[in-house]
Amino acid sequence: MPYRAPVSEYEFLLRNVVGYDQIAQTERFAEADNDVVTAILSEAGKMCEEVMAPLNRNGDLHPAKLENGVVRTSPGFSEGFKAIAEGGWIGMSAPEEYGGMGLPMTLSTSVNEMMSAACLSLQLAPLMSQGQIEALAHHASDAIKELYLPKLISGEWSGTMNLTEPQAGSDVGALSSKAVPNGDGTFAISGQKIFISWGDNDITENVCHLVLARLPDGVPGTKGISLFLVPKFLPDENGNPGKANSLKVVSLEHKMGLHGSPTCVMQYDGATGWLVGPEHGGMAAMFTMMNNARLGVGGQGVGAAEGAYQHAVAYALARRQGRTPVEGAGMIVDHADVRRMLLEMKAEVFTARAILLSCAVAIDMQTATAEPEWAARAALLTPIAKAFGTDTGISVAQSGVQVHGGMGFIEETGAAQYYRDVRVTAIYEGTNGIQAMDLVGRKMMDGGEAASRLLDEIQDQAERARGTMPALAEAVWQAAETLREATEWLTSQKDMNTRFAGAVPYLKGFARVLGGHYHLVAALADPQGAHAKLAEFYIQRMLPEHASLLAYAQAGAEGLYALSGDDLERG
Amino acid sequence: MPYRAPVSEYEFLLRNVVGYDQIAQTERFAEADNDVVTAILSEAGKMCEEVMAPLNRNGDLHPAKLENGVVRTSPGFSEGFKAIAEGGWIGMSAPEEYGGMGLPMTLSTSVNEMMSAACLSLQLAPLMSQGQIEALAHHASDAIKELYLPKLISGEWSGTMNLTEPQAGSDVGALSSKAVPNGDGTFAISGQKIFISWGDNDITENVCHLVLARLPDGVPGTKGISLFLVPKFLPDENGNPGKANSLKVVSLEHKMGLHGSPTCVMQYDGATGWLVGPEHGGMAAMFTMMNNARLGVGGQGVGAAEGAYQHAVAYALARRQGRTPVEGAGMIVDHADVRRMLLEMKAEVFTARAILLSCAVAIDMQTATAEPEWAARAALLTPIAKAFGTDTGISVAQSGVQVHGGMGFIEETGAAQYYRDVRVTAIYEGTNGIQAMDLVGRKMMDGGEAASRLLDEIQDQAERARGTMPALAEAVWQAAETLREATEWLTSQKDMNTRFAGAVPYLKGFARVLGGHYHLVAALADPQGAHAKLAEFYIQRMLPEHASLLAYAQAGAEGLYALSGDDLERG
Repeated sequence: MPYRAPVSEYEFLLRNVVGYDQIAQTERFAEADNDVVTAILSEAGKMCEEVMAPLNRNGDLHPAKLENGVVRTSPGFSEGFKAIAEGGWIGMSAPEEYGGMGLPMTLSTSVNEMMSAACLSLQLAPLMSQGQIEALAHHASDAIKELYLPKLISGEWSGTMNLTEPQAGSDVGALSSKAVPNGDGTFAISGQKIFISWGDNDITENVCHLVLARLPDGVPGTKGISLFLVPKFLPDENGNPGKANSLKVVSLEHKMGLHGSPTCVMQYDGATGWLVGPEHGGMAAMFTMMNNARLGVGGQGVGAAEGAYQHAVAYALARRQGRTPVEGAGMIVDHADVRRMLLEMKAEVFTARAILLSCAVAIDMQTATAEPEWAARAALLTPIAKAFGTDTGISVAQSGVQVHGGMGFIEETGAAQYYRDVRVTAIYEGTNGIQAMDLVGRKMMDGGEAASRLLDEIQDQAERARGTMPALAEAVWQAAETLREATEWLTSQKDMNTRFAGAVPYLKGFARVLGGHYHLVAALADPQGAHAKLAEFYIQRMLPEHASLLAYAQAGAEGLYALSGDDLERG
Repeated sequence: MPYRAPVSEYEFLLRNVVGYDQIAQTERFAEADNDVVTAILSEAGKMCEEVMAPLNRNGDLHPAKLENGVVRTSPGFSEGFKAIAEGGWIGMSAPEEYGGMGLPMTLSTSVNEMMSAACLSLQLAPLMSQGQIEALAHHASDAIKELYLPKLISGEWSGTMNLTEPQAGSDVGALSSKAVPNGDGTFAISGQKIFISWGDNDITENVCHLVLARLPDGVPGTKGISLFLVPKFLPDENGNPGKANSLKVVSLEHKMGLHGSPTCVMQYDGATGWLVGPEHGGMAAMFTMMNNARLGVGGQGVGAAEGAYQHAVAYALARRQGRTPVEGAGMIVDHADVRRMLLEMKAEVFTARAILLSCAVAIDMQTATAEPEWAARAALLTPIAKAFGTDTGISVAQSGVQVHGGMGFIEETGAAQYYRDVRVTAIYEGTNGIQAMDLVGRKMMDGGEAASRLLDEIQDQAERARGTMPALAEAVWQAAETLREATEWLTSQKDMNTRFAGAVPYLKGFARVLGGHYHLVAALADPQGAHAKLAEFYIQRMLPEHASLLAYAQAGAEGLYALSGDDLERG
């Protein structure tokens, strides 16, 4: 499965669509100018093409295994991880004082997406470390930061997130893992955690677990939860891995895909841990990590979509079959329905990537300016970037299988692997349903102000486009107006369940409208080129779906509870 | 994965929604009255629940294997196949003179769907035999019928379809397999065929292949193709399996799912075959088999959807998590978004099943009355039943994974298997894109007359419903009107590629409108019950999607060719 890093497409998006120039104009990120962007993307792209892409099928065919309590990773993954580490790609956006590059999140998001396209299961390892780095940088003591951050950034050590417990699932507040003070400033952590991605490996010297647990005086629910750093090996006086901690990998899950990523059941039996952030303040610290990870997982969806798309285009350009309706070499790419699928895939990848990068830009602007508007923009876009990015990964991989026809169902071609691997991204880091509830709940606690400000920008932009592209501009303006009305309806609902009932259609409708906007902006920047043609395709054929989605969003909760459990069970 | 056959739901649909009573009123099917329907469905349902469902995971975990040229089927599949055969379920609709039951296709379609829900990979074996039985019954000589049909119907022997060749794929006319007359009335068949489902097994005494090949004087393209019956073992003078024929299984495919169904590469090296139908008339005979198989595959999609739905409901009713917004036991079924998913799944299964059974009813009425209107109705609905049924299988299985959250990605729970297994149904027996092209092409060669007649019925029905359910009736009436306009636009397009460009959205929009109609009919029959509540859900939230789909259907081909192959390849 060869992969070609879409460097020029990134450059186009950063320069013309998502407003990267604002970032480079800040003092904080002044060094990250266009030359740096090009250099970074090109170098990372090369690594993805040459080192990571060749490992993708290895991970699928030779899953990570648990041998005598230790995870053995897929062939070549150790070398792949080290190449990522040596390139500096783990710590791209990490603080420079600890060995990071201090670059904008927008760039690390771009590189993460490329790595996901090349080898999703391996990319998940540095993604986990990145989340831990950010959580520690924001919430840990200086001593912990000085000891752990350089090792995590260099890739000598790796990081994981431990939230989920068997009985608690998405309801983190129901967790029962315990933390008991040891009297020496450390804590004894006990409990079982499940679905721990890269919970162990045979690549890094140490594996550092961020574990949510409850102190003896922790109240029930999320307010009684604290966060602890629990390394596999306790650092000795020189900061090197010493005595083994009291934790182990109980088993690995047998999954539908992502076989190269070991998904562990972890057991902590009085393992030594250090508090990160205040007592009972674990959720706040964890949210730092989770927001980062949500953007990261959105990028995984976009990357998988890009990989599946490239794979399908290559097949369609090379496979001859049937009489095609246009002159040419007779390849299946020229059948109308194959083209329709490919264009939908391409238009959807563009949309998901533009949302992803816009979210990253908002995070960087928040970092650089501390303006609350940017924070609100980032908060608003994060659940959309996660859910729509991963939905796109799934839908594009699904179309990729279809483009391959019968060969799509055969594992050797690789189309099936994209489809299987990406499926989990709509589930982990908060299911896409939870993202949508976050969007209509927490992210609308401002009464829809952040959404309204974004819609103002979209409509202003559409007004400016009326001169050159009147039909496209009008369609986007009207779609934004429909989204505004839906948002006003939603935010006027006091009953949260009424909002939740329409949350997923609302998020999808929101993404459709954002897609119209970004495609229009791209068309204006490339009026004679492929972007304008793709924008016309999207706005004419795909954008109209927003109307039924946003009407669905306002249908209310009552109809959902009209059927009883018995009614649901009965035939 | 326990399965409960939805017998009462079938009875409801047959009696109240799809007009089964018309069938029982014909002379041909006079015996198949309501009592027979209940007896048949109950008995078949019991077999599906008790014999087939327990085999489903076996097939996935222990795929069929090729050992020394012979296929070894999954554990228990032999007993399962024999139970199907002994129940008479292979030959339910086969002629009674050869041992069949002569029952309406509507009943065999219902039973096939139940078997698909219970164990899709095993069900494919009798489905293949059924297609062969129908092709032989219509096109073979009396001698062949007398020898083969009783054996196929009893399940002593099994049947396969051999169309696809590596270089030809969906373009059957490009096949290169050869048939040379032996001078004794038989033919020597040579060539390679791929994707042959159940191409061999260790269950039946003989495996009978229907093979498309070209006679020496066969012109290029589909008009030069003939159909041959090529048994694995040549029948001896007593009609028992004798000498091995010159054919073999070269290899089995390694597939994403449906592991219990051996997908074979077949090699024919001068194998002895008998002509079925006239020389160069192979496509017509094959179409008999394919139309049957298309309805059958549509039923596979519906069955897999039903299985995945039941599986998800059971999980949602049993899994406690988080605070639910309504009073109750706190199970995830009471979260609004989980309910939304389950109701969409249930509403979609209802729609797909109603379309499937309506198509089967039309086929039976065609058989019983020979009225061309019924033939046209059957022809119109077949591609919709196939494509929408299998799309529903995929979308419902996809939602089923999501309802399970993290457990959905873990193979042990079984949700993933539905998702993997059903994926191929949108590809085989003509991809869903090909079904859509068939719908807007061949099936609209009547200028849209059959569609128009169906829309008249839908609108008449909606008029009658205005008194009791005015809002639902109006929504369905208007949706039918939108479909009528789209159909008129499509049929007025002389350029077939303009039609093909919108074929898939048109088919999906058509199915949406049919869903509105059938849900409305069900609501009228069960105005205080679950069907009316589900109809309200569907018509309010899901039916509106038809508008954007049917607008998309009219967008034309030009925009699809605006981007070059280079544009598609570039990032």
